[in-house]
Amino acid sequence: MTTSTQFQSIYLQKIRQNRPLVHNITNIVAANFSANGLLALGASPIMAAAIEEMEAVPQLSSAVVINIGTLIGKEVEAMVLAGKTANRLGIPVILDPVGVGATSFRRQTVEILLNEIQFTAIRGNAGELATLAGVKWQAKGVDAGEGSHSLVEIAQQVAKRYKTLVAISGETDVVSDGLRTALLKNGSPMFPQITASGCLLSAVCGAFLAVAEKKRYFNALVEACTAYAVAGEVAAKSLKPTQYGQFAVNLLDELGALIPETVEQYAEVEYV
Amino acid sequence: MTTSTQFQSIYLQKIRQNRPLVHNITNIVAANFSANGLLALGASPIMAAAIEEMEAVPQLSSAVVINIGTLIGKEVEAMVLAGKTANRLGIPVILDPVGVGATSFRRQTVEILLNEIQFTAIRGNAGELATLAGVKWQAKGVDAGEGSHSLVEIAQQVAKRYKTLVAISGETDVVSDGLRTALLKNGSPMFPQITASGCLLSAVCGAFLAVAEKKRYFNALVEACTAYAVAGEVAAKSLKPTQYGQFAVNLLDELGALIPETVEQYAEVEYV
Amino acid sequence: MTTSTQFQSIYLQKIRQNRPLVHNITNIVAANFSANGLLALGASPIMAAAIEEMEAVPQLSSAVVINIGTLIGKEVEAMVLAGKTANRLGIPVILDPVGVGATSFRRQTVEILLNEIQFTAIRGNAGELATLAGVKWQAKGVDAGEGSHSLVEIAQQVAKRYKTLVAISGETDVVSDGLRTALLKNGSPMFPQITASGCLLSAVCGAFLAVAEKKRYFNALVEACTAYAVAGEVAAKSLKPTQYGQFAVNLLDELGALIPETVEQYAEVEYV
Repeated sequence: MTTSTQFQSIYLQKIRQNRPLVHNITNIVAANFSANGLLALGASPIMAAAIEEMEAVPQLSSAVVINIGTLIGKEVEAMVLAGKTANRLGIPVILDPVGVGATSFRRQTVEILLNEIQFTAIRGNAGELATLAGVKWQAKGVDAGEGSHSLVEIAQQVAKRYKTLVAISGETDVVSDGLRTALLKNGSPMFPQITASGCLLSAVCGAFLAVAEKKRYFNALVEACTAYAVAGEVAAKSLKPTQYGQFAVNLLDELGALIPETVEQYAEVEYV
Repeated sequence: MTTSTQFQSIYLQKIRQNRPLVHNITNIVAANFSANGLLALGASPIMAAAIEEMEAVPQLSSAVVINIGTLIGKEVEAMVLAGKTANRLGIPVILDPVGVGATSFRRQTVEILLNEIQFTAIRGNAGELATLAGVKWQAKGVDAGEGSHSLVEIAQQVAKRYKTLVAISGETDVVSDGLRTALLKNGSPMFPQITASGCLLSAVCGAFLAVAEKKRYFNALVEACTAYAVAGEVAAKSLKPTQYGQFAVNLLDELGALIPETVEQYAEVEYV
Repeated sequence: MTTSTQFQSIYLQKIRQNRPLVHNITNIVAANFSANGLLALGASPIMAAAIEEMEAVPQLSSAVVINIGTLIGKEVEAMVLAGKTANRLGIPVILDPVGVGATSFRRQTVEILLNEIQFTAIRGNAGELATLAGVKWQAKGVDAGEGSHSLVEIAQQVAKRYKTLVAISGETDVVSDGLRTALLKNGSPMFPQITASGCLLSAVCGAFLAVAEKKRYFNALVEACTAYAVAGEVAAKSLKPTQYGQFAVNLLDELGALIPETVEQYAEVEYV
């Protein structure tokens, strides 16, 4: 078991140096916050969803992040094209299956995406990943919900089934490649109280994978989730527990101020 | 005449306990702010507009809020399906007729919605409700505007015509079921200076109606408007009158911090 | 050469007096921030993009601002109709060619708009305007990028080719009508670190042009860019250089607090 004392932040600095372009196909709730979060972190966001540019934009980009938050039309076709282009180019592509357990329409949409695209990572909450694992879960809408199944098992199962990395966000984050699994204890109870905090994390995962070598994707994903959780932890420090508006503001500030030393100092990561 | 000393906050606490899922079909301006406001208040927002899930999402939800702010395509069809589903399920459905007086397209859209859906409540500004009442009003775009007609009359007229509750937002809010009418004097002049503050109020009305018994909908709507206005009043307290950016942040903070005692202490509600 | 000591703010006060309605066809990233920025400044925003109201909304408005940030469908048709209507009515119409250099789809879209609409002003970053000038530029996605060509030359060239005013945003803003060119040295390095800060400036340009006489459009555009840059300069004053979240909040506050005297005191404008 490795504990937090050994945790090394490697990729945060690379984001600041390389300023990777991260292509986001996202929703009307998360678009502004995700773009601001990526900018604060040091990456360069491009939000684009027109099918006419779903080959061109991934070609300019270092990662593609696909979020099914507020589908209204032919975005699925655009998502598939962007994802396939990312696969062809060999750049990482991340799926955020927002509320996939909520409706059969979302399940079918995610099924199409999983059939057509080889995802590098899937990032969601417990309810969303339980749905992908085919496990019973009591979720409500797009919220995480509750269940008795082990999150580690769910993460490993989905990772193996879809040959992808998995990151489950919650009080303890679980990151797995199917063999190795990390438990991340950082974060703040304020995260689920602000909208699109999960969507932004998926975008942040895109930025970290964008600057990592393929064989180090697992480490980059662990660092992404840890760095984001630490930024939230610091952001919440000076706040009353219900200052959700200011928390969202502070989170952007702390993503901007975050340095590897802070991540390493706060990180509580265990491998199981 | 009942005065503010008797005002009782009943439903705020129920929102915190039940955490109702509120389904919002909303616009690109309001989506993020409305979701954050609902979360801060203690409700659980889901923003969904794909016609393919307009039966499934209301089925999961405790209220549906329909906002015509930035229509671009086939949302009307989705809105009708969601509203009819809400009617069938017997859950409250709220209409926010954003800028209905501005263009004939918006008037026609609202006409379709009013014909197809039995709304529990319509929440808008004076100009919007005057349009629904067929009364002359000098509005500008999506802003409230000015007119000489009595707001109480307008509220009662619309309530009777469409067999619905009505909430008119302004310096004094007017809430009516056609027979009973409440005047709410809380609020802040900063509200109309931040975008989507009306849209968020409509969503907040959804959360309050979601946790109320049908025969108490009028009271729940009065409390919704009062609680929101009080949160804004408190949010503005420490600010200079032009700190609009910080007001939006503080409003979310105060929705999070709001307790029944604060609502009751500040409430200035009169029944006419 | 005129220096900043002579700079006169004329139109800011007119915005506060006239409260012009500014019609924005904009994207999911910028919609909320642009609306809040216009409100803070004292203008009245209407965000509308449905083709069915693209004649009606410009008719109510004092300016139309067209932003191609996140196209997904038939917005181009709506943009053309709104722009042509603005031309017919003789109200100013502003183009923000977001990321036009990034993909051929965006170039083609902008070409259609430039062919069909006589723009009063084009507002973008160096990479975007270099693309319109047909000059080589190293841009990345929707960011400004770098190139050796003179920004003054680019501004003048685009202004002449399209018979329009041009505003290039950057460390030094360049505003030109093809003959007269102003260099504006105000601003903050935090601007490019928050998303939609350029989109909001385009909307602000719309508000300033809305209250100016035609023959003074150049002056109004110079004042728009100067006022916005000054608001940002003041907004950044009390912040650490990475407090991007709070900068966005403060920028809205300072747009609200801005008075002509502040603009005049800070303005660093040179004419070349």
